[in-house]
Amino acid sequence: MAHTYLSKITLAHGAGGYETSELIRKLIVEVFKIKRIGDGVGLSELDDAATIPIGNGKSIAITVDSYTVKPHFFPGGDIGKLAATGTINDLAVIGAEPIAFMDSIVVEEGFSLEDLRKIINSYKSVLEEYGIALIGGDLKVMPRDSLDGIIISSTGIGLLNDAPLLDSMVKPGDKIIVTGAIGDHGAAILAAQLGIEEINVRSDCKPILPAIRIAKKIGGIKAAKDPTRGGIAMALNEFSSKSNVDIVVYEDSIPVHEEVRALAEMTGIDVYALASEGQALIVVSSDKAEEVVEELRRNGFSEASIIGEARKPIGSKPRVYLKTMVGGTRLLEAPRGELVPRIC
Amino acid sequence: MAHTYLSKITLAHGAGGYETSELIRKLIVEVFKIKRIGDGVGLSELDDAATIPIGNGKSIAITVDSYTVKPHFFPGGDIGKLAATGTINDLAVIGAEPIAFMDSIVVEEGFSLEDLRKIINSYKSVLEEYGIALIGGDLKVMPRDSLDGIIISSTGIGLLNDAPLLDSMVKPGDKIIVTGAIGDHGAAILAAQLGIEEINVRSDCKPILPAIRIAKKIGGIKAAKDPTRGGIAMALNEFSSKSNVDIVVYEDSIPVHEEVRALAEMTGIDVYALASEGQALIVVSSDKAEEVVEELRRNGFSEASIIGEARKPIGSKPRVYLKTMVGGTRLLEAPRGELVPRIC
Repeated sequence: MAHTYLSKITLAHGAGGYETSELIRKLIVEVFKIKRIGDGVGLSELDDAATIPIGNGKSIAITVDSYTVKPHFFPGGDIGKLAATGTINDLAVIGAEPIAFMDSIVVEEGFSLEDLRKIINSYKSVLEEYGIALIGGDLKVMPRDSLDGIIISSTGIGLLNDAPLLDSMVKPGDKIIVTGAIGDHGAAILAAQLGIEEINVRSDCKPILPAIRIAKKIGGIKAAKDPTRGGIAMALNEFSSKSNVDIVVYEDSIPVHEEVRALAEMTGIDVYALASEGQALIVVSSDKAEEVVEELRRNGFSEASIIGEARKPIGSKPRVYLKTMVGGTRLLEAPRGELVPRIC
Repeated sequence: MAHTYLSKITLAHGAGGYETSELIRKLIVEVFKIKRIGDGVGLSELDDAATIPIGNGKSIAITVDSYTVKPHFFPGGDIGKLAATGTINDLAVIGAEPIAFMDSIVVEEGFSLEDLRKIINSYKSVLEEYGIALIGGDLKVMPRDSLDGIIISSTGIGLLNDAPLLDSMVKPGDKIIVTGAIGDHGAAILAAQLGIEEINVRSDCKPILPAIRIAKKIGGIKAAKDPTRGGIAMALNEFSSKSNVDIVVYEDSIPVHEEVRALAEMTGIDVYALASEGQALIVVSSDKAEEVVEELRRNGFSEASIIGEARKPIGSKPRVYLKTMVGGTRLLEAPRGELVPRIC
């Protein structure tokens, strides 16, 4: 019903695709008047993190996300590991070094203390591996009829010693690199939610900070993004629309694990809309792209690949094109609809 | 059942009293190894905000809270106004000037878009009144069987030009000031939850930043705290235990509105455990206390009062004593149990 769609929140509003962007734009971005601090990155950019300039060209980068994934424990991780890695990744892709984390836990009455302990220890392990401090947080309990499980809202704080990497900085000619096979996280959650056991897929949930460090060290990096909700379809469209470039990607260059492809076919979900939580898209100038990929491969990102490039728009608005394996071209649009629910 | 209590989360764990402190201490504070940035305020302090030093004696102050209040709209405010004021207040009581805010919204499928718009506009109004930028956020949607209503997790960022005001900085002889009548917020939520209409009480939900600015300007301020969950009973006990001082407060000096007292008596809830969301406890050296109160009264805080003082502990551990109207003395302990559910 059109009326219901217009007057009520739908699952699609939370799927991280087209409807999420539209809702945030209309209810928030267009409404607020004060949207940034000085010349920092603010609300209007809708980038992965905001920045607060602190002088000498340095900034503090800050990101906030609420994690609602179900099931709480899944092959390859749990909601705690996801909260830490997702937060680290949002800071990493803007070019920041994460230094601190804050956790705001909302949990249902009756939740297992042992599970809560496991979840907390999961984010502790990830944070301490990267030397990140937990500097504060909050804890609330909701009655059982009001919340099913646990929500972790995490705030990450990072240091940025130079200009941020923004989605809007991609130029025609730049190459698009992916650090590894896409869609593992979305597929793992989907399989768990649907109870599909014959397909063995694990979430790729892990910090991509090492990959960004490698690209920054080599140089030529323009932008980066972790393709979570909405997958690379959403992430590439954000690069495209914010940078006003067409993006062309080649299907035969995009690494996808067999099990993930099989699950996507079985469920009818576009594999390019499936979330990764341990991969990054990195945009690099064409002269550095090969070197970045080689260095990534030498450092544990064995499936890193150049998957395409940015071009001047050929139409009236910038778009993302997928060159298919059979030689065709299709538009890769920002995903719409419910997609896979609650993957993060 | 003792076993259930030990293995499951209870509502008391989220009430902001004794059980909340113990749970956070055992599951988080004692577990994490990296708890601060440089000599900033970190996890161990369990204060209202953390700080990150940025050089020249300055710091960024950061606070995170999840707001789950029910009902979402209540006399005197709504969950959006509460999220903004609570966050501003957590920064104010550590001595910081709030500059930026981030909102992470989790909302149930089917939630009214109009209500969501009202809630967002509520925090917009408060933030813009104080010149605070909204620099980013997140939005998630949960299915109707998983969440009842809306949760707003807010991150506040402030600037601190000098040393933070900490709960641990109270010294014997210092005076305790309250900026106005206590418990209005807790009473308003309690009345709404119980459907008590004959008692007319409104939440005091508002930024206390102007009060802290007044006290800082006059000088002599040692510490401050907004007595939210657990009321002044909890806040005074935090001053006492962290500063290792006894605190003596005088019942006849503590402003309480008649309706709030009546509701407390009717429900058997200690009025000193009822939350305020628009008042602060300010600890000031004795030579400045009168001047701070006078200036507060001249600037809209007409019920501001000195309610007691800090003293050297007379026993083996520091405690909070209430001198009652009839001339007796009773211990005012950190509240235990469920208190009023979901007041913030």
